[in-house]
Amino acid sequence: MAKLSGLELRSKITSGGKLELFLEEAVVPEPAADEVVVRVEATPINPSDLGMLIGPADAATFTAGGTTERPSATAVVPQPRLALVAGRLDQAMLVGNEGAGLVVEAGAEAREWLGRRVATRTFGMYAQYRLARVADCLLLPPGATSRQGASAFINPLTALGMVETLRREGHTALVHTAAASSLGHMLNRLCQADNIPLVNIVRSAAQVAILREVGARYVLDSTSPGFAAELTDAAAETNATLAFDAIGGGTLVATILTCMERAASRQATSYNRYGSSTHKQVYIYGGLDTRPTELTRNFGMAWGVGGWLVTWFLQKIGSRDTQRLRERVAAELTTTFSTHYTAEISLTEALSPAVIAAYNKRATGEKYLITPSPVVG
Amino acid sequence: MAKLSGLELRSKITSGGKLELFLEEAVVPEPAADEVVVRVEATPINPSDLGMLIGPADAATFTAGGTTERPSATAVVPQPRLALVAGRLDQAMLVGNEGAGLVVEAGAEAREWLGRRVATRTFGMYAQYRLARVADCLLLPPGATSRQGASAFINPLTALGMVETLRREGHTALVHTAAASSLGHMLNRLCQADNIPLVNIVRSAAQVAILREVGARYVLDSTSPGFAAELTDAAAETNATLAFDAIGGGTLVATILTCMERAASRQATSYNRYGSSTHKQVYIYGGLDTRPTELTRNFGMAWGVGGWLVTWFLQKIGSRDTQRLRERVAAELTTTFSTHYTAEISLTEALSPAVIAAYNKRATGEKYLITPSPVVG
Repeated sequence: MAKLSGLELRSKITSGGKLELFLEEAVVPEPAADEVVVRVEATPINPSDLGMLIGPADAATFTAGGTTERPSATAVVPQPRLALVAGRLDQAMLVGNEGAGLVVEAGAEAREWLGRRVATRTFGMYAQYRLARVADCLLLPPGATSRQGASAFINPLTALGMVETLRREGHTALVHTAAASSLGHMLNRLCQADNIPLVNIVRSAAQVAILREVGARYVLDSTSPGFAAELTDAAAETNATLAFDAIGGGTLVATILTCMERAASRQATSYNRYGSSTHKQVYIYGGLDTRPTELTRNFGMAWGVGGWLVTWFLQKIGSRDTQRLRERVAAELTTTFSTHYTAEISLTEALSPAVIAAYNKRATGEKYLITPSPVVG
Repeated sequence: MAKLSGLELRSKITSGGKLELFLEEAVVPEPAADEVVVRVEATPINPSDLGMLIGPADAATFTAGGTTERPSATAVVPQPRLALVAGRLDQAMLVGNEGAGLVVEAGAEAREWLGRRVATRTFGMYAQYRLARVADCLLLPPGATSRQGASAFINPLTALGMVETLRREGHTALVHTAAASSLGHMLNRLCQADNIPLVNIVRSAAQVAILREVGARYVLDSTSPGFAAELTDAAAETNATLAFDAIGGGTLVATILTCMERAASRQATSYNRYGSSTHKQVYIYGGLDTRPTELTRNFGMAWGVGGWLVTWFLQKIGSRDTQRLRERVAAELTTTFSTHYTAEISLTEALSPAVIAAYNKRATGEKYLITPSPVVG
């Protein structure tokens, strides 16, 4: 049998300070017994993918290169930022963390998957073909398209992981920032389904309107002058003592903790100079603002801030609980866990400086879908 | 029987922005069955006591008042800081969290304590007499003095709580800042006894020398130009992934996390843009630097920062484990858990502006002992 081969996107940062994006023809390995080869039909550009794809490059410096069929793009990586990516220098990295497509080859233990559509959490999905372990795949329900299955892992499991964290750590209500994102919409639907009060924090009046339209009850605009007072009221009403923050930098984390502490102090009967004993926790899971996180520490002593990554969270809870979450995603793929895409682009378009500028804006609520194979089911 | 009465120190912050320290004659209540009355002979000035005693007052503005036998002192609290102490305004607060003395009255169930010396974790110890629950007292070993027992709770249980936290959260080595403090010396002795590698961070070459003299192995000066490199090496050698920080403000917390992350990355075999999966934790238990904590977040995603308070920690682990820690304190009171005092002062001296200036310097390694009763056993 002739060996399958296809294009895959590569991202390389040279020690000379250049980011190179290009396409490489790669032969697809034979699947092992528990593996399948997926013809990738749809793969989303998540913020986490941009980290690998563009990294610390200066996005304003992109220039096009290569040919029409095999385009490339290069950009400058400012010298001081090279230390941040020392571990990947001069390596042509694969990109893309999830996607969906058709199973075109299957190992001995996965014969029944042939010809079926799957979603997979496999690294290097910005490619025409990708070898995947069956354990990292989800069979799509009959009739479901690769478009519907493309984002079946990262955002759904992140939203479910947040709610799982809430339950395991004894909280009952949640604050979420950058809440008009794709993930934010999903989290709203999930919290509505599970009756968990969710306080959405967004960064414009327009985003407030968007979330209100989809039925969100608590939506606060962090640029509004009354923001801190409103957040304190919302924290007091909902008893939210846990927040997931996608922004990271600046003073928002401290403001959230301060408002939660004020809400907790409303119930205090006596003075404690260490503040309330109500534990307040913020997990930073993104870094839209790359400045330092500034913690004023005027929110007592019962607080925690930490990094949060869905992959590590799932490792911590183990495969049985992870499987339970995956099954819920499969069951509610086209409802709770559906994703709306701003535009679809091909693998070659993904290397066009104009298109890069569009998807790299990271505009809240916008999400791009790459369609590496000509036919998308 | 004539009712006992004695002086007690009070700290009041008025809504007009004045801190008033004064002595009040108070009648000592009859002890209930499970209570004793302690004639307080020795009570330390811990950083946590200064928070209640001086609070946000401008210490440069102290003026003396009152009479020789019943002196008082006042200082200005700058208006913007009043909000920080809204919960205590216009209340004459008791001060002093621990101390030791002679049991001079005892309830029905505590008769055998009469005439014995005890240490107690009871609020309001800056007083000549204090009613205490037996459950909050520790009987001193025969022959032990109140001086030896004065600091039997806060620092010893804090040091033990740190080591207990290390064990419960799966760490094996520890970083401690402001490590030349009384607590720092105690923690060194404890970690030496328990074979736990301890990386001491201090703020001067003189403090390095002091800790080396008492046998500390890892002592780093945060003002040295090679500090970050040294801390990375020490973290790599010891595998320290937990730190307790007394400073709080500025960039030290981030530096500790960054060095721990670099140490963890030395063992990494492949690039992960989320950093190492080794969880790095810093607990802030003091606030020597009141500026915001600045977290650069260049230490991957596996990290946590939080407030830590020994009282809440002991509540969390429960009374049985707390009792186990207390028994260890009693057994090693004059060795592992001994405290050196810079000077002894009387209750009236504690209100003298010159003396306040001395103990409020919070100079690392200095500790003052108040002796409220004329005879100290």
